[in-house]
Amino acid sequence: MNERLQAFSSWLQQQHSSFALITSSTNVFYLSGFWCDPHERLLALLVFPDGEPALVCPHMEVRRARRSALECTVIGYDDSADPWKEIDRHLRQRNIQATSIAVEKHHLSLARFERLAALFPNAHWHDSEEKLRQLRMIKDEREMKALRQAAKLADKAIEIGVSAIRPGVTELELVAVIEYELKKLGVERMSFPTTVLTGAKTADPHGTPGTAAVAPGDFVLFDLGVIVDGYCSDITRTVACRTLDDEQRFIYETVRRAQQAAIDACRPQIAMGEIDRAARRVIEQAGYGPYFTHRVGHGLGIDIHEYPSLHSANRAPLAAGMVFTIEPGIYVPPAGGVRIEDDVAVTANGIEVLTSFSKELIIV
Amino acid sequence: MNERLQAFSSWLQQQHSSFALITSSTNVFYLSGFWCDPHERLLALLVFPDGEPALVCPHMEVRRARRSALECTVIGYDDSADPWKEIDRHLRQRNIQATSIAVEKHHLSLARFERLAALFPNAHWHDSEEKLRQLRMIKDEREMKALRQAAKLADKAIEIGVSAIRPGVTELELVAVIEYELKKLGVERMSFPTTVLTGAKTADPHGTPGTAAVAPGDFVLFDLGVIVDGYCSDITRTVACRTLDDEQRFIYETVRRAQQAAIDACRPQIAMGEIDRAARRVIEQAGYGPYFTHRVGHGLGIDIHEYPSLHSANRAPLAAGMVFTIEPGIYVPPAGGVRIEDDVAVTANGIEVLTSFSKELIIV
Repeated sequence: MNERLQAFSSWLQQQHSSFALITSSTNVFYLSGFWCDPHERLLALLVFPDGEPALVCPHMEVRRARRSALECTVIGYDDSADPWKEIDRHLRQRNIQATSIAVEKHHLSLARFERLAALFPNAHWHDSEEKLRQLRMIKDEREMKALRQAAKLADKAIEIGVSAIRPGVTELELVAVIEYELKKLGVERMSFPTTVLTGAKTADPHGTPGTAAVAPGDFVLFDLGVIVDGYCSDITRTVACRTLDDEQRFIYETVRRAQQAAIDACRPQIAMGEIDRAARRVIEQAGYGPYFTHRVGHGLGIDIHEYPSLHSANRAPLAAGMVFTIEPGIYVPPAGGVRIEDDVAVTANGIEVLTSFSKELIIV
Repeated sequence: MNERLQAFSSWLQQQHSSFALITSSTNVFYLSGFWCDPHERLLALLVFPDGEPALVCPHMEVRRARRSALECTVIGYDDSADPWKEIDRHLRQRNIQATSIAVEKHHLSLARFERLAALFPNAHWHDSEEKLRQLRMIKDEREMKALRQAAKLADKAIEIGVSAIRPGVTELELVAVIEYELKKLGVERMSFPTTVLTGAKTADPHGTPGTAAVAPGDFVLFDLGVIVDGYCSDITRTVACRTLDDEQRFIYETVRRAQQAAIDACRPQIAMGEIDRAARRVIEQAGYGPYFTHRVGHGLGIDIHEYPSLHSANRAPLAAGMVFTIEPGIYVPPAGGVRIEDDVAVTANGIEVLTSFSKELIIV
């Protein structure tokens, strides 16, 4: 068994679990190496305190699963079959007494839980998700390699986007150019829908690109990420078209100082809330406190949002192997918004900033 | 209140529900018109048997929510706040006795259910998802308009992809060209990651595009869709590069005949399983039965997979307003695979095929 499966199996042993039923694509991938998005169909990895795991997947995925989930028994089912019966049969074959079952409480739906509870009416249910989040929060060297590569491609994407800015180009055209060039570089998936916003739309931290065209005096905000070997990067840069007024320049420099203050605050053992506060302090002192409306950052990995969560109330300490974003922003509707975001990894004695595209104010 | 909210509220009345808690982005969008992907944060629409609904969303989404969810009270919460407490407070303000609560059992996670069950320990929980699926299954004229437009853009995407085929071009390059040109046409989102597969990879019904290059004698399979005003299209075409051998031609013609047979079987009132069997019969008679490994089609709408499910065991009748795919395929590893997929709408007295790109064998 691989190290991750071993760590998780040991935990199941400690918890006196009969088995774990893992149904999220991301955790199945983390534990088995098999990536599958089954849509509404069931994908389930059964992990035991000892013995080989079993992977239950739609029949059409069986070939691919056998190739990638090497250490698992693979059980396929047809669209007309009931995968829960397959699970029940497999457990009976293995003679498993289901007294305590670990599930992903944040992922398992109530409907699926009711099916399981009907199969195992006397079982105790406990959560495996928190444990898996904790395991996934600390990246190993292979994961770091993918994250570094994903960050490099995110830098490249910003470079492509910034080069394509000219008055009149639309947000969607900039998205198109970025994704086209990345696909030509062999990128298969973005971490999330690429965001390019311009002008007043930059003031919406979750706006979506449309046919708005870049005009002189606009901020142009790029927020995007690339998936490499299953791992996500996430970068934001805000640049300007032709000219900026004094307030815009002040907002930009404030965000830049806040972002640097947060990065400077990152070191092993510091409480995460301190990092958020380091950025927030700079923004509050500049008078824009109410316009920084989100936490300073979030963990990165197989999911674009995972542990740790860098919000002001989080007292947990940073530790080596954590990878997260640092992304303060100021959003002043309708004038515009600025966000600057890097990906940061905590090392044994410091940090490594994975994204490296310039944060100097760029006026195109 | 809009018609959908009215229909859903009436159902809550019939069910003697105290209220419904809707947490899936798609159902919130269907009922309120507000689209939001809150990632791990909570988005919740509270719908009551009578009175105005309330929308609970992250603080940063409040402005957008107020613009689009016109008939709702909008309640925002910060990252450091507990949205469940906001929900509890709102219900107390409205003096709601929570005796029976409707939730989306396939969407609501066990963790969220446990939070709710702690707030309302004496409530009876019933499922609203099946009702919402049934409501969403029958499209109104506004939805049909979006679906038609999405299908037209899917046709356009295939045209772009087929025009870009030449020996040596990679799968990802073809994806890049398609998405680039669509974004220039103003397309904001694809229904799912655009799939282009070539050669042996076409034999994997859920393969992902990579750096494999098109070679003479290859099938090239395009499977993609476009979202227009929140509604998905889904089309597949398989074409050939330069030349095909006799077996490949036979496979293509078999899939084409099977797909036509399934379309010909579609009419109001026919049992859905009959449509699957119409395609399957053609493929079995040609000797490829074991290589058609999935159902013939699935419903389309806000989700890329929704009701109805056109599998062989489904006895439910087709009805006017349903929109779904017809997509038989034959996958013969390692030789290759063919799938042909159209989007079909059921009308009062027949059907309307929304996608129209040619299904003649095209050799580029």
